[in-house]
Amino acid sequence: MNIKGKHYKTIWLHPNNENIVQIIDQRWLPHQLVIADIKSVDEMCTAIKDMWVRGAPLIGAAAAWGMYLATVEVPASCARDFFFEECYGKLLKTRPTAVNLKWALDEMLKSITGNDSIIESRWYGKTRAEWISADDIKVNEQIGNLGAQLIQEIAAKKNGVVNILTHCNAGWLATVDRGTATAPIYKAKELGLPIHVYVSETRPRNQGAQLTAWELLENDIPHTLIVDNAAGHLMQNNLVDIVIVGTDRTSRTGDVANKIGTYLKALAAFDNNIPFYVAAPSSSIDFNMRNAFKELIIEERNPDEVKYVQGLENNQIKQVLIAPEATPAINYAFDITPAKLITGLITENGICAANEIGITGLFPGK
Amino acid sequence: MNIKGKHYKTIWLHPNNENIVQIIDQRWLPHQLVIADIKSVDEMCTAIKDMWVRGAPLIGAAAAWGMYLATVEVPASCARDFFFEECYGKLLKTRPTAVNLKWALDEMLKSITGNDSIIESRWYGKTRAEWISADDIKVNEQIGNLGAQLIQEIAAKKNGVVNILTHCNAGWLATVDRGTATAPIYKAKELGLPIHVYVSETRPRNQGAQLTAWELLENDIPHTLIVDNAAGHLMQNNLVDIVIVGTDRTSRTGDVANKIGTYLKALAAFDNNIPFYVAAPSSSIDFNMRNAFKELIIEERNPDEVKYVQGLENNQIKQVLIAPEATPAINYAFDITPAKLITGLITENGICAANEIGITGLFPGK
Repeated sequence: MNIKGKHYKTIWLHPNNENIVQIIDQRWLPHQLVIADIKSVDEMCTAIKDMWVRGAPLIGAAAAWGMYLATVEVPASCARDFFFEECYGKLLKTRPTAVNLKWALDEMLKSITGNDSIIESRWYGKTRAEWISADDIKVNEQIGNLGAQLIQEIAAKKNGVVNILTHCNAGWLATVDRGTATAPIYKAKELGLPIHVYVSETRPRNQGAQLTAWELLENDIPHTLIVDNAAGHLMQNNLVDIVIVGTDRTSRTGDVANKIGTYLKALAAFDNNIPFYVAAPSSSIDFNMRNAFKELIIEERNPDEVKYVQGLENNQIKQVLIAPEATPAINYAFDITPAKLITGLITENGICAANEIGITGLFPGK
Repeated sequence: MNIKGKHYKTIWLHPNNENIVQIIDQRWLPHQLVIADIKSVDEMCTAIKDMWVRGAPLIGAAAAWGMYLATVEVPASCARDFFFEECYGKLLKTRPTAVNLKWALDEMLKSITGNDSIIESRWYGKTRAEWISADDIKVNEQIGNLGAQLIQEIAAKKNGVVNILTHCNAGWLATVDRGTATAPIYKAKELGLPIHVYVSETRPRNQGAQLTAWELLENDIPHTLIVDNAAGHLMQNNLVDIVIVGTDRTSRTGDVANKIGTYLKALAAFDNNIPFYVAAPSSSIDFNMRNAFKELIIEERNPDEVKYVQGLENNQIKQVLIAPEATPAINYAFDITPAKLITGLITENGICAANEIGITGLFPGK
């Protein structure tokens, strides 16, 4: 999507040096646009772990490019495939929740191992990582087309502006381009539909305030920032027509692990008869997981993310302490929204009910 | 309650100068303890409006002391009662949601008007404001005793630490002393019950992080800070045994207007079969309101409270911008939790169901 009118992806191979992958280092948005050069697997691990890049699909793409970097940096003296497997292990450990990470790493490992030469591994690695990036965009476009139809139907019924609520950033910054939850929004805008987006700030890291608001602003989408607490009040007062969120991992049975707070929004949507959709590319569906509540590891992050808030003061990015220094905090990164609260999943193959019949109906091979 | 081991109320008459009311200026907590001198009705209006003091019961007490200050500053040349009514009007306009404000102002106006002299008005004003403060403490102690019984029952059944979740600050800082939602917590502590409190930070103004965490810390109550988004996840995972919140206005039929986000917590408690109680002194019950959803004005505050977060950096209190400057925000201060989601109201006269029969059963005169 656009930044100051110029098109960007979130990750790409350096145009003049194929030993370097470039990313938007999202830690400084919306205040500074920083492009970072990633030159090694370890640097990519840091970029994923410390959330220079984040969002399930982009984590997948970044991991893929990390594996490509493994083919760049593998020492000639090494047992090549063994080195690649070590890199796979390092990248897999960076974040525990997004299933796209493992999916992308598996795809990459298959491509870069078992080859006759480093050159071959490198060529296959590059091609596969490029394919994973391109496929992400294509999938998001399909989700966008399907989701925009939902918005169009509401617009037709309502004969007015459609108010969409989203949580966190499942925007283009969470993918390679276009986003998952935002893909229908960008498509609706391209179709000329009247839309307005409520952006919930998404504490603790404020990806809504820092990323979603920024990308909507840069792409001329009317939007309003709210605190996470306000979503219920908006829904009680008919100020939201549809909720669209992303997912970090969706079980075979339709339960959705997504950014902490998603469950509360789903409860409010259900209580007020508002359609609640999850933009779920198949790469984020864990076809082997039947019971997310039992099987899923919910990432616990540093409590300082709760106690400190980052923002701009006096033209500098600062972190302020919002609680007593001695107060302990706990920081769960995700929660699980049970399928019963979800109106539908928007996948690249169609929209389906959030249950096994719906999901396997669209993906019969799985 | 205690600060560094010394007992404080939130508001009191200056010990050496009865023309001055003193308050804890809560805007700087937990980082700085500032005691402010309030010398006029206009200053008290500012203190309420700009949230130097906040919380429905304390807003009532502050308004009462504001009316006392009216008797201090009334010019001898003035039509006294007319001046008092003007002050009443000014104070009434400071915050729209808390019913205690009007209740306290009505009580005060009755006391200070219709007297034979300024001296008499002043004496009645002082006595009435002192009574309103003292009564608040007594009511909170009664709520504390009743609520602690609920905690005791859970402790007995569970044979372990009782995890209590609260939202915003309905603590002693929201009252004259002891708090409403925290009164059962402080009482449980005094009874030696094993308790732990989850404090939700309560964006946008973070009264949970800044005030509740601080007062629990100062009074040796084990607690953990969470982001508002995390409440649902905790409840899904059996980490919360009881929710206790305050109220800014409770309708005759048991609907509760309280800090934005309360409704979302109530939804999660209901979905997970966790008891959800509201500490509701009768001064916060609007016996004339039948339909809160239709009749109540929900205060909209400055959007900058959403876009900027206050905290400590480098030993200075600063405000950081968390979103793009050009992004619009909206800031609803309260939401309404429907009675159907509330297990019970803890009033000074007993615990009752959140409905008209329950409420009027405890307050038959109303």
